[in-house]
Amino acid sequence: MASINANYDKLAAGYLFPEIARRTQVFLDAHPEVSVMRLGIGNTTEPLTKSVIAGLHDAVDQMARVETYRGYADGGEGEPEMREALAKRYAKYGVELDASEVFVSDGAKSDSANIQSIFGMDNVIAVQDPAYPVYVDSNVISGRTGEAVNDQYEGLIYMPCKEENGFMPEVPDQKVDLIYICSPNNPTGAVATRAQLQAFVDYAIEHKAVIIYDAAYAGYISDADLPRSIYEVEGAKSCAIEINSFSKDTGFTGVRLGWTIVPMDLIVEDAGAGKLNTLWGRRQNTFFNGASNIVQLGALSVFTEEGERECQELIAYYMENARIIRAGLRSLGITVFGGVHAPYLWLKTPNSMSSWDFFDKLLSEAHVVGTPGSGFGPAGEGYFRLSSFGHREDVERAVASIQANLKI
Amino acid sequence: MASINANYDKLAAGYLFPEIARRTQVFLDAHPEVSVMRLGIGNTTEPLTKSVIAGLHDAVDQMARVETYRGYADGGEGEPEMREALAKRYAKYGVELDASEVFVSDGAKSDSANIQSIFGMDNVIAVQDPAYPVYVDSNVISGRTGEAVNDQYEGLIYMPCKEENGFMPEVPDQKVDLIYICSPNNPTGAVATRAQLQAFVDYAIEHKAVIIYDAAYAGYISDADLPRSIYEVEGAKSCAIEINSFSKDTGFTGVRLGWTIVPMDLIVEDAGAGKLNTLWGRRQNTFFNGASNIVQLGALSVFTEEGERECQELIAYYMENARIIRAGLRSLGITVFGGVHAPYLWLKTPNSMSSWDFFDKLLSEAHVVGTPGSGFGPAGEGYFRLSSFGHREDVERAVASIQANLKI
Repeated sequence: MASINANYDKLAAGYLFPEIARRTQVFLDAHPEVSVMRLGIGNTTEPLTKSVIAGLHDAVDQMARVETYRGYADGGEGEPEMREALAKRYAKYGVELDASEVFVSDGAKSDSANIQSIFGMDNVIAVQDPAYPVYVDSNVISGRTGEAVNDQYEGLIYMPCKEENGFMPEVPDQKVDLIYICSPNNPTGAVATRAQLQAFVDYAIEHKAVIIYDAAYAGYISDADLPRSIYEVEGAKSCAIEINSFSKDTGFTGVRLGWTIVPMDLIVEDAGAGKLNTLWGRRQNTFFNGASNIVQLGALSVFTEEGERECQELIAYYMENARIIRAGLRSLGITVFGGVHAPYLWLKTPNSMSSWDFFDKLLSEAHVVGTPGSGFGPAGEGYFRLSSFGHREDVERAVASIQANLKI
Repeated sequence: MASINANYDKLAAGYLFPEIARRTQVFLDAHPEVSVMRLGIGNTTEPLTKSVIAGLHDAVDQMARVETYRGYADGGEGEPEMREALAKRYAKYGVELDASEVFVSDGAKSDSANIQSIFGMDNVIAVQDPAYPVYVDSNVISGRTGEAVNDQYEGLIYMPCKEENGFMPEVPDQKVDLIYICSPNNPTGAVATRAQLQAFVDYAIEHKAVIIYDAAYAGYISDADLPRSIYEVEGAKSCAIEINSFSKDTGFTGVRLGWTIVPMDLIVEDAGAGKLNTLWGRRQNTFFNGASNIVQLGALSVFTEEGERECQELIAYYMENARIIRAGLRSLGITVFGGVHAPYLWLKTPNSMSSWDFFDKLLSEAHVVGTPGSGFGPAGEGYFRLSSFGHREDVERAVASIQANLKI
């Protein structure tokens, strides 16, 4: 008698985005004349840039010729050129990496969900609260938590991100083993300073913990003083894994490409230098067979001067959206965080409304769909996420509608 | 103190293909003048076909225009057009499927490794022996086995595939919960008949077990009487998950595209109809974000008349390689199985040599690299796998070298 993985039943009912879709549909069914405007999810909307398109066409043509055709690369670690190019990019931040420390993947989501599988079941997990749901859900499904009680899973350590700490948590006041940190942060848009990351690195070294650092939005940092990689911080190579992505700065949310750094120097209690690197390689070789070679070879165009400039323009486009949203909301007296070095804006709901009440209000009055902060964790209650991904005219229309119709 | 997943240390030392690479390198270091010929691994060598190349270029262009650009699709289940097209394809075999039962992925390797994760840890696993190593390794890493003793993992049930049973096993003589079957088989090249599959389906229904059916090589079946899908067999929808791939019949080993069918009718002891479909959807939504949209949209060209004809030509090319290898080996009196409805040939090693001894002999005498059968499981000892993936001239050169130089 086959049985299911019962951990799935622990997942808090109603995944956030399906519930948003459901409420939106209910509203549309009642008001068929309305067209809603979406500032909800983190999906890119603008076409790929010229260099990337040319690179992808060239990669497709390589697969058409017998001399340049490639099957799968040896192992699931990535095409050698892409591993090399990514390793080199870190030199810009003063970080020296070897290509063997870079694992190319189909995206930061997969890697941030799968990375827990190379660790033991007894590791105590700490997450930012609020956080990208994948960190929590992957650990719930794998069996590292108990049931959800009052919106918190038993056994998980939640590190509250509040206005008072600038939405970057203090290090845990107890011993934990794996620490997920996302900076620039989804959903709050906060960015960790060098000092804040140094505190986590020091904690991790002291407690032999491992930091899983999600830097998927690092491309949005425009202040050179803010670290774009955790390895800019002294000691991080001995205690941190970094995950990153082409999704948001190259427009690859649907094209799928990301990477994970597992430094050779990384150590844990029961395994010396190199072991975690080997384990992640073994994991990728068994459960994965590499990101699409067309996508990898095509994305090499991003590392040219022209390609880089175009990515910067793409980021600037979305950040201008963020500026417009922020200005529009502030004109109504709404408190807005984030949206400066990150594509997400994090609003304090007016009049201390609950996140879901504000969702309903924004939808019914302004016809705008956003994301309730409580969907990212209990400390997100009373907050609301808006995303700057969207066509300029849609963003402007949504902001104008909020300004004209939202009753505060 | 972070700790590692100690199950990794149970994996029998020396993964098959790295060990092949190591021995080959040792030989080359000692004989730098030799150029070895590879008939070892299942990697495609021939360029993508015209229709597919045109489809991929068109998909790239869609991402260049604001009107047709796509970010990620909702959920990780696949682009709607691809799910529809795959569901429809099954109608050819008399199998009715809904698009919601089709999950598009980045390949059969990922799916066949990950599928175990929706089942409980207490399920008893049965595998063909020999088998594609991913079925075994994914369960070892997840903790469903004990240590390896005499090349068998404690707790796993091995179903021997021998000459006497045509390399398709009988149903287990004990109760098991999850049964991995691969047909056409890697490594033996054997194909399950309808009656053989019916026996497994009947067993699964009786014992409430689930069959995980890897049909990645189904495109190589040329006899209409042999089932291309397990769902051609009565009752299979209530007890079987089917995994398939674009790798070998479209040349997508490096491009990455596959799919998995989880029928709504599938039931297990603790979960009614639809539950496993929901669980796999939830798994894909949490640990995956869809196969590359460029690859999915490009591959729609395969479903045109022209696209299908070209895939048949690609298959015919590799099968002519298989014919050449088989004929060449038989001319030396070597017993060869498979290679008729599958791209793999399974040789009985001459004079009852061990698989690795024959590997060394073939390499040193004929300069040809193949794959020792024992690497696929204990019952593979005394056998040897050759693959028909390769350029025609390389295959011919390898066979000529074997005929001229192998001392039997």
